[in-house]
Amino acid sequence: MELTNQMRAETLAQALPYIKEYSGKIVVVKYGGNAMKNDEMKLSVMSDITLLTLIGVKVVLVHGGGPEISDMLSRVGKKSEFVNGLRVTDKETAEIVQMVLAGKVNKNLVNDIQNVGGRAVGLCGADGHLIEAVMQDPSLGYVGRITHINPQPINDLLENGYIPVISTVGYDNEGNAYNINADTAASAIAGVLKAECLISMTDTCGILRDKDDPSTLIPVVNVSEIPMLIKSGTIKGGMIPKTECCLEAIRRGVKKVFIIDGRTPHSILVELMTDEGIGTMFA
Amino acid sequence: MELTNQMRAETLAQALPYIKEYSGKIVVVKYGGNAMKNDEMKLSVMSDITLLTLIGVKVVLVHGGGPEISDMLSRVGKKSEFVNGLRVTDKETAEIVQMVLAGKVNKNLVNDIQNVGGRAVGLCGADGHLIEAVMQDPSLGYVGRITHINPQPINDLLENGYIPVISTVGYDNEGNAYNINADTAASAIAGVLKAECLISMTDTCGILRDKDDPSTLIPVVNVSEIPMLIKSGTIKGGMIPKTECCLEAIRRGVKKVFIIDGRTPHSILVELMTDEGIGTMFA
Amino acid sequence: MELTNQMRAETLAQALPYIKEYSGKIVVVKYGGNAMKNDEMKLSVMSDITLLTLIGVKVVLVHGGGPEISDMLSRVGKKSEFVNGLRVTDKETAEIVQMVLAGKVNKNLVNDIQNVGGRAVGLCGADGHLIEAVMQDPSLGYVGRITHINPQPINDLLENGYIPVISTVGYDNEGNAYNINADTAASAIAGVLKAECLISMTDTCGILRDKDDPSTLIPVVNVSEIPMLIKSGTIKGGMIPKTECCLEAIRRGVKKVFIIDGRTPHSILVELMTDEGIGTMFA
Amino acid sequence: MELTNQMRAETLAQALPYIKEYSGKIVVVKYGGNAMKNDEMKLSVMSDITLLTLIGVKVVLVHGGGPEISDMLSRVGKKSEFVNGLRVTDKETAEIVQMVLAGKVNKNLVNDIQNVGGRAVGLCGADGHLIEAVMQDPSLGYVGRITHINPQPINDLLENGYIPVISTVGYDNEGNAYNINADTAASAIAGVLKAECLISMTDTCGILRDKDDPSTLIPVVNVSEIPMLIKSGTIKGGMIPKTECCLEAIRRGVKKVFIIDGRTPHSILVELMTDEGIGTMFA
Amino acid sequence: MELTNQMRAETLAQALPYIKEYSGKIVVVKYGGNAMKNDEMKLSVMSDITLLTLIGVKVVLVHGGGPEISDMLSRVGKKSEFVNGLRVTDKETAEIVQMVLAGKVNKNLVNDIQNVGGRAVGLCGADGHLIEAVMQDPSLGYVGRITHINPQPINDLLENGYIPVISTVGYDNEGNAYNINADTAASAIAGVLKAECLISMTDTCGILRDKDDPSTLIPVVNVSEIPMLIKSGTIKGGMIPKTECCLEAIRRGVKKVFIIDGRTPHSILVELMTDEGIGTMFA
Amino acid sequence: MELTNQMRAETLAQALPYIKEYSGKIVVVKYGGNAMKNDEMKLSVMSDITLLTLIGVKVVLVHGGGPEISDMLSRVGKKSEFVNGLRVTDKETAEIVQMVLAGKVNKNLVNDIQNVGGRAVGLCGADGHLIEAVMQDPSLGYVGRITHINPQPINDLLENGYIPVISTVGYDNEGNAYNINADTAASAIAGVLKAECLISMTDTCGILRDKDDPSTLIPVVNVSEIPMLIKSGTIKGGMIPKTECCLEAIRRGVKKVFIIDGRTPHSILVELMTDEGIGTMFA
Repeated sequence: MELTNQMRAETLAQALPYIKEYSGKIVVVKYGGNAMKNDEMKLSVMSDITLLTLIGVKVVLVHGGGPEISDMLSRVGKKSEFVNGLRVTDKETAEIVQMVLAGKVNKNLVNDIQNVGGRAVGLCGADGHLIEAVMQDPSLGYVGRITHINPQPINDLLENGYIPVISTVGYDNEGNAYNINADTAASAIAGVLKAECLISMTDTCGILRDKDDPSTLIPVVNVSEIPMLIKSGTIKGGMIPKTECCLEAIRRGVKKVFIIDGRTPHSILVELMTDEGIGTMFA
Repeated sequence: MELTNQMRAETLAQALPYIKEYSGKIVVVKYGGNAMKNDEMKLSVMSDITLLTLIGVKVVLVHGGGPEISDMLSRVGKKSEFVNGLRVTDKETAEIVQMVLAGKVNKNLVNDIQNVGGRAVGLCGADGHLIEAVMQDPSLGYVGRITHINPQPINDLLENGYIPVISTVGYDNEGNAYNINADTAASAIAGVLKAECLISMTDTCGILRDKDDPSTLIPVVNVSEIPMLIKSGTIKGGMIPKTECCLEAIRRGVKKVFIIDGRTPHSILVELMTDEGIGTMFA
Repeated sequence: MELTNQMRAETLAQALPYIKEYSGKIVVVKYGGNAMKNDEMKLSVMSDITLLTLIGVKVVLVHGGGPEISDMLSRVGKKSEFVNGLRVTDKETAEIVQMVLAGKVNKNLVNDIQNVGGRAVGLCGADGHLIEAVMQDPSLGYVGRITHINPQPINDLLENGYIPVISTVGYDNEGNAYNINADTAASAIAGVLKAECLISMTDTCGILRDKDDPSTLIPVVNVSEIPMLIKSGTIKGGMIPKTECCLEAIRRGVKKVFIIDGRTPHSILVELMTDEGIGTMFA
Repeated sequence: MELTNQMRAETLAQALPYIKEYSGKIVVVKYGGNAMKNDEMKLSVMSDITLLTLIGVKVVLVHGGGPEISDMLSRVGKKSEFVNGLRVTDKETAEIVQMVLAGKVNKNLVNDIQNVGGRAVGLCGADGHLIEAVMQDPSLGYVGRITHINPQPINDLLENGYIPVISTVGYDNEGNAYNINADTAASAIAGVLKAECLISMTDTCGILRDKDDPSTLIPVVNVSEIPMLIKSGTIKGGMIPKTECCLEAIRRGVKKVFIIDGRTPHSILVELMTDEGIGTMFA
Repeated sequence: MELTNQMRAETLAQALPYIKEYSGKIVVVKYGGNAMKNDEMKLSVMSDITLLTLIGVKVVLVHGGGPEISDMLSRVGKKSEFVNGLRVTDKETAEIVQMVLAGKVNKNLVNDIQNVGGRAVGLCGADGHLIEAVMQDPSLGYVGRITHINPQPINDLLENGYIPVISTVGYDNEGNAYNINADTAASAIAGVLKAECLISMTDTCGILRDKDDPSTLIPVVNVSEIPMLIKSGTIKGGMIPKTECCLEAIRRGVKKVFIIDGRTPHSILVELMTDEGIGTMFA
Repeated sequence: MELTNQMRAETLAQALPYIKEYSGKIVVVKYGGNAMKNDEMKLSVMSDITLLTLIGVKVVLVHGGGPEISDMLSRVGKKSEFVNGLRVTDKETAEIVQMVLAGKVNKNLVNDIQNVGGRAVGLCGADGHLIEAVMQDPSLGYVGRITHINPQPINDLLENGYIPVISTVGYDNEGNAYNINADTAASAIAGVLKAECLISMTDTCGILRDKDDPSTLIPVVNVSEIPMLIKSGTIKGGMIPKTECCLEAIRRGVKKVFIIDGRTPHSILVELMTDEGIGTMFA
């Protein structure tokens, strides 16, 4: 159906209260590697983020890039080994992780934002020592646990009108690079920035009672219900750490935390600019 | 037809290039007394203006109020006499004009903007000696010709994030108040502010080849065509001075000038935020 | 007696300690409707206020306008009814109150200030939602009780070098206008602004022991004496609420509160810039 | 005659147009060594300057100190030799000139200003290399000709709200100190600062047609008349270089230049804040 | 030889005139891929750059990375083909160039700077659309010719106290990445920033009359001599385009341009902070 | 021994951690009258201070001038009388103290700093009423006890990039000048400014166990040891009040306090910019 311009204008007019709500606030968007597989969809998400920036929202984009990392590792003939869903990361792998995330995925997102009319600067944990980390577990190698987030470079860029785009590679005092889980980093960054809201864009609809039936989506999860939902198996697998990051963000003072489906067109605008909650909200 | 939130979000997304075009620019909106007769429509226009402000447009609202003036004059038992469409304005009438415009129409518009979530301050020509004027023609009494527009108070309010709402009452050095034509004032203000665009909201569709047939709307009028259109009678009556104000604004460097129908819902958003030109544009 | 320029210069020189005392401080002047009846005197008061501004005092002018309101009501054939000294205010009366205060009295004062060389912007409670109010007593109609003073627009104007001139019309969330007692509003505004001093200019000399004998003026009233002065009838009639507003201002942290006679030439300068206290000071 | 406070207030009120005229403008006051002999009068002048600062004038004080220098030279047993009215200045004398001007006269003036409630910082030509000079004539020794005035330290202090008090000692690139004529320095400083006005306070009434008859004061001297006045002997002796400095200031763009009598009480206020011109004005 | 602390202090003291000369000035350092092969030397260069920043120099670091690119291409099994010394760059190669430069070399330099105590942010041409480019020659593929340098993101970072570290990857409007010669980019960036000086750190001593004899170094080359030096074969091979970039920088207003040996310890400090010119200076 | 430029550059490079440590911090240097006797050494100290300023340290210089005062007193034929090491200061002496310190010693230091390329402004206690004092003991005359330090003028000058050079003359409310011990003033100033460090430059090596054997220097004195060191006579004579000032500074929050030998070349740079502690540090 084609909308008339009259309807378009009316729709804009109806967004007023939502624009007012988020104007001047910080919104951290975590954009997962699986959600960005489709190029057209990725460009559409960057366009939505640029729109939010233009209407006064201060957006910080934190991205992953698992599939791109795996792809590059296989191209150089390195096998990926996983322990409990975490990639065992030797020195060479850590270098490739940094290179792919900060040099490929990050700069491509920055380039996309610039091409749809936004202004962005790409950062990794080395820039202004944004993410400091230490080794989490020697058996996993260079997988990092965050010890400090330095908000200065992010705030400097926001102040100057740029969208900071952040690769989640952390560094220790000796200069070693660590692979950091993007959900964990986004949660920590949102907490340090006292963000209004954290939106985690993934390739699922949110938390489903029956994982094969989208109609069983749980729209609002109360923080106190989570242990029971994990115990009952409703939240399971990769959704467990993701949920825990959402929880952690709420504990650190982020007001609203959402898991939404990055594959749905304009899901981020539907969530922030309409009365509809898509995905799952943590309260 | 009810739009889905998906469609709403998509509509917002499609407004990106228009938002980008006007972000940070000054737009002067002239809102005529006839266009504001319907209360609901008036509130809707104030809401549109607030929306524009939130997405980064610097809106200056210049209003008329002929019907309200006539109404108050009749309530105090004063007859209005008109010469060539201009109200003969004795001292007492000038006082009532000031009182009705600056005290009733202006503050009601300010109040409406505040109630839909915007921030506004109402001014007349006395505030910061914004509009200086002299008597235009002694036989018309206190009808003023603008001698100077002082942009400082307007810019100070824009800088502090307010929508300046301006009553077109001018003052001379002896402190006499003058009734100033709102179209003329809006054009002069837009010129002094180096506005990106001037939108004149009236109670007609724009310039029509056949005044009774809206389908004969002329969407774009080239400046050079105007004398011929007046000569041929296509532009006539009250539309002649209105057209001349538009012309004057273009001469003073305003980039885009529109006459649009204030009675059409969200006409201002249709004009600025879609690919449709409604009303007549001067080029 | 004509002063020599030598004496003039000496007089200026002797004002140094007073100028120093008030430089950079906020002074709220309440200028009552009865005090402004004489046009020449009004211009002289505006000139004194402009002088104070030039020597570094941040003056906020809060005005009344009872006589002008009564006059306009009678011109449109509306009778004023009073209950306990408060005007019963139906919807139509409230509209006229707003129109007369914000459109006539206010803008005339602004115009006077500009004409004597000052810079002023006129506000009412709608501008930047400066005065929020609710209905005080349904039997009185739209007579308002202040629920919130928003100092932002006042401070923004002071910061930009303007004298804010304020009409005491308040507004509720539905957009209804309320008539607000000017003494009450001035007191509340002085309190919110943490003013150094509140000066109430009326048409009496101050508090008199014998109301018919100016020589019985009480120069300083201690806050603790007031109940007794009311009980004894020394403070009575319209002076009771005026006194209570002064008291309220002191409670909210205003350092000095005066009631002075607006009909005495330059009474405001005598009070602030000489060693003489005219009128009554509350301590 | 004792003024009533009413008269005092009225006098203040009448100063409004003069205050308005000088508000925010730079006024350079040259205060000669002979004019400052009387301690009470000196304190009164510092008080007047402080008053001017409080009402918004940016005052720069340039002082001389001939009598104090002579006094100190005689205390250390050094004879002063003069050639054409200029002190022959050997190295030791230059050191004493610097010490007396910058350490005694300057700091005493600063101290006086602080004690009457102003804020001042004392400078000499070394501070921020304010006055750069070279030797004017080897036979005179360390008497300097100004090669450069650096306005930065003066503007920095004015910006921070201080009255800069300047001793006219200049320095060359090798660090030698030079005695600089205070009239010349004041004129050069006023020119570089684009001052509104330069006031030279001396111990004469101004330029007199008959030097023994104050009633023959010439109130306004046109620049073109000066050569004739010098030729005719009306301007003679020490008044010649003083007049030439006034002329030079006008050439460099200073709008108004006055020679006034520093011994007349509040002469500076009479000149700037009343309609009376005392002394001689150069036009 | 071990220096005493006395000698160290004296050495610092003697650097004063050099520090003064460069304080607050922009210095663009081009750091070539060949010069950064030795890790310890690289860290030492980053330390020198950090030192310059601390003593007030605004350093912009532009880096190459040829050897790292070749290495990664060979790891993914891609052959590098060169035409006239320029790498033929297909789409896949361009992606790897971006990834290696912006993700590996750049972030490692940023990390090194942070580790020696500086503050840095890494950029490529996508960030804030810093480097815009088009295809230079279709037969070379994605080798870019610079069409625009946007200094804003560089200046924003300098203003906030960061060392901008720049990978020379450019982008066109369709989002294609181009490999840009680092010497060319450094020269263009230095020109746009109106840099005081451009230092090109390479793996040669400068321009030698006899390429095998360092003692034949030409310390200063006059711009007018260059054509002859090329014609005579003194400047040849890779040194020809490097020389042309230096020339271009001088044409765009860069005051001083040097080619120095990045393998000599602290060569950048020797050049800027002592009286010795090492390498070749263009004048 | 002549250093190669290579060695110079390396020395600079090794200063990086020290520069980093003091960058942006306030360092108060007390420069005693005895330490400044040698002109060449004085210029060298001013040069070191300028260097510190250029590398980002905010230096405040507090100076004494006993020998110069004695010299001038003797030139005007005044005998100096001392009680417990304090000069008995009659009115005339106080005037000469002010004149010599603020007019001779101070401005000469300012001039020296300007000549080695720094920017300085000289202040005494009168400027901005920087040092307020009262009489300490009537039998000593105008010897002052500090009652208040006003940091505003110092901070204003530091903010504008000047080195404040301070003569320790204090003033009471009646305008009397007092001779203030420079060690005491420096300690009070360092405390009020929350300085990082206070360096007292004297004409001894520091605290010696055997006053005739420099090899017995105590490099670090713990605050708790001082009473014992005084009791045992290790700290004695003029070193006792000096030590007490150091102690007082530590009590007021200054982090590091040193006594160093002003006669050793570049001792201030050795202390701050190398790993060697010369003189005695209080901890």
